[in-house]
Amino acid sequence: MITPQEAQQKIIQTLSSLPSETVPLQKGVNRVLAKKLYAQENLPPFNNSAVDGYAVCLSDLIEASPDRPIWLHINRVARAGGEKVIGYEHGAGIKIMTGAPIPNPFNAVIMKEDVIAQGDQIQTTYRPDEGENIRFQGEDIKKGEHLLRKGAILRPYEISLLASQGFSDVPVIRKPLIAFFVTGDELVPASSSHPLTDGKIYNSNGPAMMSLLSRWGIPHIDMGVIRDDPDAIEETMRQAFLSGDAVIISGGLSVGDFDYTRPLLEKLGVTILFHGVAVKPGRPLLFGVYRHQGIEKPVFGLPGNPVAVLVCMEEFVRPALDVMQGLSPSPHRYHLFGETTNAYSLPKGRQQYLFCQVTPCEDRFRIGILPSQGSAMVGQVCKANALALSPIGLSEIKTGETLSFRWLD
Amino acid sequence: MITPQEAQQKIIQTLSSLPSETVPLQKGVNRVLAKKLYAQENLPPFNNSAVDGYAVCLSDLIEASPDRPIWLHINRVARAGGEKVIGYEHGAGIKIMTGAPIPNPFNAVIMKEDVIAQGDQIQTTYRPDEGENIRFQGEDIKKGEHLLRKGAILRPYEISLLASQGFSDVPVIRKPLIAFFVTGDELVPASSSHPLTDGKIYNSNGPAMMSLLSRWGIPHIDMGVIRDDPDAIEETMRQAFLSGDAVIISGGLSVGDFDYTRPLLEKLGVTILFHGVAVKPGRPLLFGVYRHQGIEKPVFGLPGNPVAVLVCMEEFVRPALDVMQGLSPSPHRYHLFGETTNAYSLPKGRQQYLFCQVTPCEDRFRIGILPSQGSAMVGQVCKANALALSPIGLSEIKTGETLSFRWLD
Repeated sequence: MITPQEAQQKIIQTLSSLPSETVPLQKGVNRVLAKKLYAQENLPPFNNSAVDGYAVCLSDLIEASPDRPIWLHINRVARAGGEKVIGYEHGAGIKIMTGAPIPNPFNAVIMKEDVIAQGDQIQTTYRPDEGENIRFQGEDIKKGEHLLRKGAILRPYEISLLASQGFSDVPVIRKPLIAFFVTGDELVPASSSHPLTDGKIYNSNGPAMMSLLSRWGIPHIDMGVIRDDPDAIEETMRQAFLSGDAVIISGGLSVGDFDYTRPLLEKLGVTILFHGVAVKPGRPLLFGVYRHQGIEKPVFGLPGNPVAVLVCMEEFVRPALDVMQGLSPSPHRYHLFGETTNAYSLPKGRQQYLFCQVTPCEDRFRIGILPSQGSAMVGQVCKANALALSPIGLSEIKTGETLSFRWLD
Repeated sequence: MITPQEAQQKIIQTLSSLPSETVPLQKGVNRVLAKKLYAQENLPPFNNSAVDGYAVCLSDLIEASPDRPIWLHINRVARAGGEKVIGYEHGAGIKIMTGAPIPNPFNAVIMKEDVIAQGDQIQTTYRPDEGENIRFQGEDIKKGEHLLRKGAILRPYEISLLASQGFSDVPVIRKPLIAFFVTGDELVPASSSHPLTDGKIYNSNGPAMMSLLSRWGIPHIDMGVIRDDPDAIEETMRQAFLSGDAVIISGGLSVGDFDYTRPLLEKLGVTILFHGVAVKPGRPLLFGVYRHQGIEKPVFGLPGNPVAVLVCMEEFVRPALDVMQGLSPSPHRYHLFGETTNAYSLPKGRQQYLFCQVTPCEDRFRIGILPSQGSAMVGQVCKANALALSPIGLSEIKTGETLSFRWLD
């Protein structure tokens, strides 16, 4: 069996980003830019006032000083988005609002606070520098310059920039559409009436997968609960590969007599890249690629146990979705450290993801490993606020040992 | 002017969480539970097999040992979700799949790997413990026990748990619906045709606010660009207070002659809790509360400068939205530290949010403060990957000084 790190590498190396699409700008947030963009406009588009005040000509104020106030005549108002103010008379200024264009030949703005206004006159002792309180055309961005690189992630900052440049839509890498289903004769939808009949359990893996995909902003098609019938499963697989850019199936991966997932994927021509990872929970994890008419679609087979599904989605499926949408693949980093407050027996030859209650303690952390964390014990793992990694090859975690962890959110 | 920390406290103390609503379980992720929930079912609902193997009675294997294999007759199969297997004969076992119910009086399961199967017989030398490989009814959750506390955040783990309990919908705190608009005669929508006419700029604050609200999963109504006309602004404010749980307005907050936001809010009866914060960018920030028929609706007035809008949304509006949806208010924490690689002049008496390029350097970080970061310079701030805080009261950041920062994402 391969290690979880090898499995993550295999996934990342196998996949590539999807083609691009054009979306309205407001849908572009958190997406990856599919091509280099150039500035369509100067930013600011014209010289404008950075403050509320008075546009002046320095030549009129050359003699201003604290001992020698200068009077200027003010008979016009320039407002942002208002009518253009034209012309200049010696000894006259313009009342100007933030964002209003600076007409020629005015070359500085005095702040409102620095003058005394009387009727249509202002008095000032302040001699501004040339260009003071003026935002110059193109001082932020020059028309035609390189604006954003291909591969840039569109944060709200970039959305604001693109909007200020008049982009109303934007070319981005397409997000993968995920088709998923769960298999098992024992599963009934949560919407069915109580109580459960003999031997049945509610489908919790479908809602869990859906909630993760929703949280990650990944579009998805829930293909429901499919019974343990090879024909029904094969038909659903075909539909899933037809509809989705990637397929996720939970269940049917063990060595039981009614585990059809792998043989049916092989029947459909899927290349199995790995089946079985040295990890707990999640050992039966399967990853393959379906190739059809030149298009490659990844498929994940997840175990049926609910805790394994959640862990496999976060640790293995998420990096795949990152690569497909053009993001740097980002397996979770376990880069916080703490000391254990209890001991725990580890599975032989597998890395365990340990559900923990971590509490801060001075500048370190104390890690309480939850005692019951079977891969079906979702009620117990809900008590965890963190996931720690067991070092591979150990048979036991001792009290006081240092483990790396990440917060669960 | 109050400090940014005082402003955040005022916002958090003024607001409270919205009423609850019931949503389908799959829409419940990242929401806050509005009431305590109890277990509707035992989990597991029945004793079942944890592995693929053979259900046995210990009394039939009491003499099994490495020297003395025992033969058992196997003539039935128990599968998950399949028909119930009833009855027991001395010396017989049942082939059983993972998840299948354990019929009485079988009291252990031997793994497939631990037997030799021959026709309808198995031979084993393994004597299991009582209950081995059985998941017992209610061992994870007992029917009627406390399941999740009021106020719990529904992570995908909790969604999985609730689904496994048959909850198809869930009571959660309502998310606020935000009505927002921007004001200014100079603004034109990005969809208008190029080039810009004299004195006009594209509306970038509307798309920026929308992208932040989308990213935070907050429903919103974009009420567009409103011209600098008091009647039009007042009417839009009325509509916004009618439709939204909170209102955000960008523009019209300065001391210019055409800044109508504050007087019109006051005319509508809004209590202004603060107007002006000792911060850069964002000094004109306004926060108030509109009370109508016993309902309180917060309103934010944001400056018109695009960088100020982005910073104010993240630093002041987001904590308000957290409180309204029942989350612990979480102003951004600046809890990473690094040393500056350049000097920077600070505004007098205000805390500055400094846009920076931060690079890791051994176990610390190097902070390059961007030289041009006017509140209209959105092109420049897009070059930043982090936001650092200037200590209040300093006139200058020196090279090599320690600053706290957070990553910008």
